[in-house]
Amino acid sequence: MVAPLKVGIAGLGTVGAEVVRLIETQARVLAGRSGRGIRVVAVTARSKAKKRGVDLRGVEWARDPMALATHPEVDCFVELMGGAGDPALSAVEAALAAGKSVVTANKALLAKHGIKLAKAAETHGGALNFEAAVGAAIPVIKTLREGLAGTGISRVYGILNGTCNYILTRMEQEGLSFAECLKDAQRLGYAEADPSFDVDGHDTAQKLAILASLAFGTKVAQSAVYVEGISSIAPEDLRAAADLGYRVKLLGVAVRTAKGIEQRVHPTMVPKSSSIAQVMGVTNAVTIDGEGIPPITLVGPGAGGAATASAVVADIADVARGIRANPFGRPIAQLHDTKKAPMERHEGGYYIRLLARDFPGTAAAIATRLAEQKISIESIVQRHPNGGAAPSDGKAVPVPVILITYATHEDAVRRALAAVQKDKVISGRPQVIRIEKN
Amino acid sequence: MVAPLKVGIAGLGTVGAEVVRLIETQARVLAGRSGRGIRVVAVTARSKAKKRGVDLRGVEWARDPMALATHPEVDCFVELMGGAGDPALSAVEAALAAGKSVVTANKALLAKHGIKLAKAAETHGGALNFEAAVGAAIPVIKTLREGLAGTGISRVYGILNGTCNYILTRMEQEGLSFAECLKDAQRLGYAEADPSFDVDGHDTAQKLAILASLAFGTKVAQSAVYVEGISSIAPEDLRAAADLGYRVKLLGVAVRTAKGIEQRVHPTMVPKSSSIAQVMGVTNAVTIDGEGIPPITLVGPGAGGAATASAVVADIADVARGIRANPFGRPIAQLHDTKKAPMERHEGGYYIRLLARDFPGTAAAIATRLAEQKISIESIVQRHPNGGAAPSDGKAVPVPVILITYATHEDAVRRALAAVQKDKVISGRPQVIRIEKN
Repeated sequence: MVAPLKVGIAGLGTVGAEVVRLIETQARVLAGRSGRGIRVVAVTARSKAKKRGVDLRGVEWARDPMALATHPEVDCFVELMGGAGDPALSAVEAALAAGKSVVTANKALLAKHGIKLAKAAETHGGALNFEAAVGAAIPVIKTLREGLAGTGISRVYGILNGTCNYILTRMEQEGLSFAECLKDAQRLGYAEADPSFDVDGHDTAQKLAILASLAFGTKVAQSAVYVEGISSIAPEDLRAAADLGYRVKLLGVAVRTAKGIEQRVHPTMVPKSSSIAQVMGVTNAVTIDGEGIPPITLVGPGAGGAATASAVVADIADVARGIRANPFGRPIAQLHDTKKAPMERHEGGYYIRLLARDFPGTAAAIATRLAEQKISIESIVQRHPNGGAAPSDGKAVPVPVILITYATHEDAVRRALAAVQKDKVISGRPQVIRIEKN
Repeated sequence: MVAPLKVGIAGLGTVGAEVVRLIETQARVLAGRSGRGIRVVAVTARSKAKKRGVDLRGVEWARDPMALATHPEVDCFVELMGGAGDPALSAVEAALAAGKSVVTANKALLAKHGIKLAKAAETHGGALNFEAAVGAAIPVIKTLREGLAGTGISRVYGILNGTCNYILTRMEQEGLSFAECLKDAQRLGYAEADPSFDVDGHDTAQKLAILASLAFGTKVAQSAVYVEGISSIAPEDLRAAADLGYRVKLLGVAVRTAKGIEQRVHPTMVPKSSSIAQVMGVTNAVTIDGEGIPPITLVGPGAGGAATASAVVADIADVARGIRANPFGRPIAQLHDTKKAPMERHEGGYYIRLLARDFPGTAAAIATRLAEQKISIESIVQRHPNGGAAPSDGKAVPVPVILITYATHEDAVRRALAAVQKDKVISGRPQVIRIEKN
């Protein structure tokens, strides 16, 4: 019988406590699956006194994360503190330098320092596993790293943030505003007091950077991701999307193009019939387009203590079984630099919502500006708010105009809309949402 | 540099040829992911002369599958011949006995001889990988075996046969009969000339037996699966399902109950809002209910040369990386015998469609028989085909009655319907479809 794998856990919040509980209650199954026992030998957390509902008798309490990471008894250091900086960074570095394996759920750390850490794992022979960092219990890291090992990937995209998907779902189903839904999400604990990390798309961007690296062999780099959040989305956009056969989702999209790997996070119109459009509420989903095969979509809980702990424990079991995959799927020397594909050169269809001032010739002016940029219009809908009757006071009321374009370039759209604004035929700023075909 | 993994492939149909092609074209990525090269050194197939569009120069042609399986140069034997018997069985046994690793897409072989083969792998130290056997490129085996290693599983169910889902999708969307859709499926190559293996549910049963073993630690046994096919489904069932908020899918369901592990394949009503209900056409999907976490659903192509080859190559890459998982997730000694949970004790809701003979008191007679068996009715709909007007010729016309029951037992339903038939208040046989809640 092989000696058990000795685990040290830094961070005992909901996830950490659940990891301790699973390792204890699932001990027999885990040993059967791994070929050896798994034992928590030491832990550390900010408060030793806090009640956690798990039995920590017989488990050593390490002074601090660094002491735990370099503890001579620990084979596998589990980092559940979070944050891109210290103490997580130094502790993970120290554990890897000591030849230990590391399991972490820390997307921020990986998006910022992933390559440095993967290099350390490669040099010293430890594993660096992070299934829980993207999509919690959804096995997307394993699928990209191992399950599609022999398949070229052309695109990976998904709903990677439950907060945003919850807000967009409520907005769509109940016709509510972004602000109202955000408030509800905060009340229910789905959104933070400062929601910007989620709703501005940064959480999605960190996760996307990790997926892109695994899919395309690029060096993980959050800075290579173009990011737009969902705060500008209005209920009328969701209604118009529905009328046109689409739903609006905050997607992270990484796609191989002739100009390099595009990585972008933005509200996106997806066909209502696509798998990704069916994903509602806090649920996450990732679709992978492999070369020559129909898309594979993985759907499930993207957050939550139990779902995150499930992935952490599976990663620990892989360490116990002796699995040493390259953290980003390939040796560091084979990963190439991420060149940020310029968003201006993005190619695709666009949804554009304008508030046209009701002058004769407004529609013609808009159409002309689009034509100048060689943008073809797939559909145009103009709806008089009062059913087309002239306003009784004789004043011109702005009329919503909704355009769907055929595939064009981002810079063409930007130039056309700048010209339309200069023409003073619209009120306010145009709303622009990119369309992603499946 | 580690020596390359030397692969022998038995069977060079669409899948085998695509495996050869992927190993060649993806050589660099595969080597990066696996830490060593992968090389096809020998092959065998029924016809040496057949054009396959792949370059087999420099690859040895083995006399027969057995010669390939025991070839001294082969590290990993890839079995793509199919069939539960010889030559596949003997060849796989010989390869495992020689300490080689085996990769196969052969669900029939695994459903029938899986335990014997896993034991041989365990004894002699080779891997036995079969991701392609269920859901082709959908990484469901890896997810159950590794991705949820530390999570107790309460249920796994899915759409595991593309032919049946294609037929049910067409029937639903176009109001066609089973026979018409089957004919179309045959014309399009989605169904065999003898379609019974698919439409009678046996293909799904083999795949379900494999999933159940991985999920619950039972010894894989196709004979433990209760099987019903889709040929009795009528367009009116699909219409009624839609009216009631359901869709009908052929599901394989394995679920932990108080009476043991239930394994069953039958047409099933699933809530229209569930992930599984969205899966249309030849696409497959599997949902896994882990204890304490929301369901995880994996969706993708369940068949096709490229999708199957993708999974085969990933399995080969795992062998190259040195991964040796227990084939069914646990050591053989820990797998328990599969006791067939008796279908009569199945508990759940039921959809029942009857053709009531239009006598006074028919509805009362039916309701009484159900009440005798303590079956509570959630809804009952009776629709006169001619809108309720008495037929002009004075003859009683059968009237469709559709019942949805609350959770009850299978034997209660069977007894109640037998009594209803004895009462001679209905025409023909009642249609019964089980309801699966998500």
